Amino acid sequence: MLSTRSPVLAKTAYRAIGGAKSAAFHLPAGRISLVLCQCSSSSSNIQTRSFSFTSRAPLQSSQSLQVSPTKPRRRETKQSWPHPVYTEKQMMDIEIAHREAKSFSDKVAINAVRLLRSTFDFATGYKHDPKVASGEKRAGDATQFAMTEKKWMIRFIFLESIAGVPGFVAGVLRHLKSIRTLKRDNGWIETLLEEGYNERMHLLTFLKMHQPGLFMRLMIIGAQGVFYNAFFLSYLLSPRTCHRFVGYLEEEAVITYTRAIADIDAGKLPGFENMAAPNIAIQYWKMNPDAKIRDLLLYIRADEAKHREVNHTLANLDADMDPNPFMTEYEDPTKPHPSKGIDHIKSTGWSRDEALSK
Amino acid sequence: MLSTRSPVLAKTAYRAIGGAKSAAFHLPAGRISLVLCQCSSSSSNIQTRSFSFTSRAPLQSSQSLQVSPTKPRRRETKQSWPHPVYTEKQMMDIEIAHREAKSFSDKVAINAVRLLRSTFDFATGYKHDPKVASGEKRAGDATQFAMTEKKWMIRFIFLESIAGVPGFVAGVLRHLKSIRTLKRDNGWIETLLEEGYNERMHLLTFLKMHQPGLFMRLMIIGAQGVFYNAFFLSYLLSPRTCHRFVGYLEEEAVITYTRAIADIDAGKLPGFENMAAPNIAIQYWKMNPDAKIRDLLLYIRADEAKHREVNHTLANLDADMDPNPFMTEYEDPTKPHPSKGIDHIKSTGWSRDEALSK
Repeated sequence: MLSTRSPVLAKTAYRAIGGAKSAAFHLPAGRISLVLCQCSSSSSNIQTRSFSFTSRAPLQSSQSLQVSPTKPRRRETKQSWPHPVYTEKQMMDIEIAHREAKSFSDKVAINAVRLLRSTFDFATGYKHDPKVASGEKRAGDATQFAMTEKKWMIRFIFLESIAGVPGFVAGVLRHLKSIRTLKRDNGWIETLLEEGYNERMHLLTFLKMHQPGLFMRLMIIGAQGVFYNAFFLSYLLSPRTCHRFVGYLEEEAVITYTRAIADIDAGKLPGFENMAAPNIAIQYWKMNPDAKIRDLLLYIRADEAKHREVNHTLANLDADMDPNPFMTEYEDPTKPHPSKGIDHIKSTGWSRDEALSK
Repeated sequence: MLSTRSPVLAKTAYRAIGGAKSAAFHLPAGRISLVLCQCSSSSSNIQTRSFSFTSRAPLQSSQSLQVSPTKPRRRETKQSWPHPVYTEKQMMDIEIAHREAKSFSDKVAINAVRLLRSTFDFATGYKHDPKVASGEKRAGDATQFAMTEKKWMIRFIFLESIAGVPGFVAGVLRHLKSIRTLKRDNGWIETLLEEGYNERMHLLTFLKMHQPGLFMRLMIIGAQGVFYNAFFLSYLLSPRTCHRFVGYLEEEAVITYTRAIADIDAGKLPGFENMAAPNIAIQYWKMNPDAKIRDLLLYIRADEAKHREVNHTLANLDADMDPNPFMTEYEDPTKPHPSKGIDHIKSTGWSRDEALSK
């Protein structure tokens, strides 16, 4: 909690880290119903669900959703990227996977991920139980450094705030390259932006469940400053290594979410067992209205597996020449090929020959 | 034309500025038909049109569309941003307009645009006839510094290569801000990205008509390097001023395209009179299959007028708090309000009160 005699100073400082601009430190809590740009263009039976949010309460428990007092009523508006529909079986079939590091570029990428992961895990007191990773123990039986609901939320929020960076950086760099070299992009930009947008939706969903405190907010800001610049420069030097890096990062994300789902199944997270998934998630993923947190994590894990596939595949391609196979419709629809959904997902990515085949 | 005894050196240098990666300096010309990700999701009677392009011919007349030799056949694929439909009347109603500079921020923006414009015009030997701008003469009667088809193409290509920058810079900065401050974006990101995407489509269309030479390519690369960084830093400091800047820039773009259309109407550009609009444009804008260059310029001018409206409006809003009125559907559909199309276009933008009204 901020401690100062000057309300102006406190408000300015709080605003700088993302707090409310116009809020006094005490606003009436209330529920306002809005429908806010959430429905897919492909769904004809759209259930209108209201957003619920609480206007800014005292600093101890804060919400960061700020709404201009004169905000107009909105009906459903088409999103740029309606989410593909996932079936329960497809989501349950998502598995932990690892693509072997073959080239020098792969090794740079995987070592970067390992370094980041071990640093972050150490700082947050998290550890995969190695017997789970090796298959000796089931994920639900993991005992080392047991996680709580709050610890999971902090981890998810921090990671998703980082995860939203690569897709947009890659997308904007390819856009700039296309317009300065006067060449086509071959369909990569939209997929990359969609990935970043999807990760931001993960974050906004988790923020409905938990609001980080000041320290966490400062860590997030610092981490973005470092990661954004590092990824930007790296992408200029070697897009291939960066996509491979993101692929390995997403492998870790799938492990993390698998562990969390297993913890719920093992009864270790009672707070999540009957908690409803936030409305924003139900609309975005077109979930069953009764969806719970476990369902939410299944969807999010499936998204991370999709990003794993996409990035490992893009790292196999020639970034200057090859079309994006995920924006392609192939001649033979019965043959497995890259697609926008997870019906033919390939855990470790498609090879270049597979991606460019008919 | 590059002049060197070393084909390897020449190819490397040419590639660096966006030339073909895999081309020899002489490849057989030919026509290859592809349908490449061009059709809107909202159109049920999609006419399948083939892309036609020529594989890289000798350096004097080059195409920069590079296709991997094993590229799969593609059928239509949904775009993220299908273009709204414009009617001929709406496009003919687009007019030159100027929003008065009121605040200090406005004045910074307009002076920046004037400085850039006068520098660029001087360097390229272009001048608006001031009697046209004041209404004393019709645009078709302008006599100063008469333009040719080639001069227009060079101007369009250069300007559109710059125009694609602001939308994506603003979009990515808002995305990063949303994920580091853990706040919603309120719908701005998608509109801004769509603007950048649209400008890139203008550029890709013009590149079907003209391929710049080496000097022009170097200028484009240099200009992007300067402009991208300047706009990025400016947007961090004052998004409002940047949107106002883009609004004034688009005012100039509408003047430019009005002049070009008037030149065609006055018979000064015979090369354009019967030239068909490129296929990429016909598909993207859902034009009549017989559309000519004049029609293309009408569509592009309408897009620029739309960006003028959007940016002047966004500059009137509170970037942290206010929702994007162009992603909003209003309670009363009969009342004029901001929208994605140009049916209720407001040349100098919507005021904050208008944008946030019901």
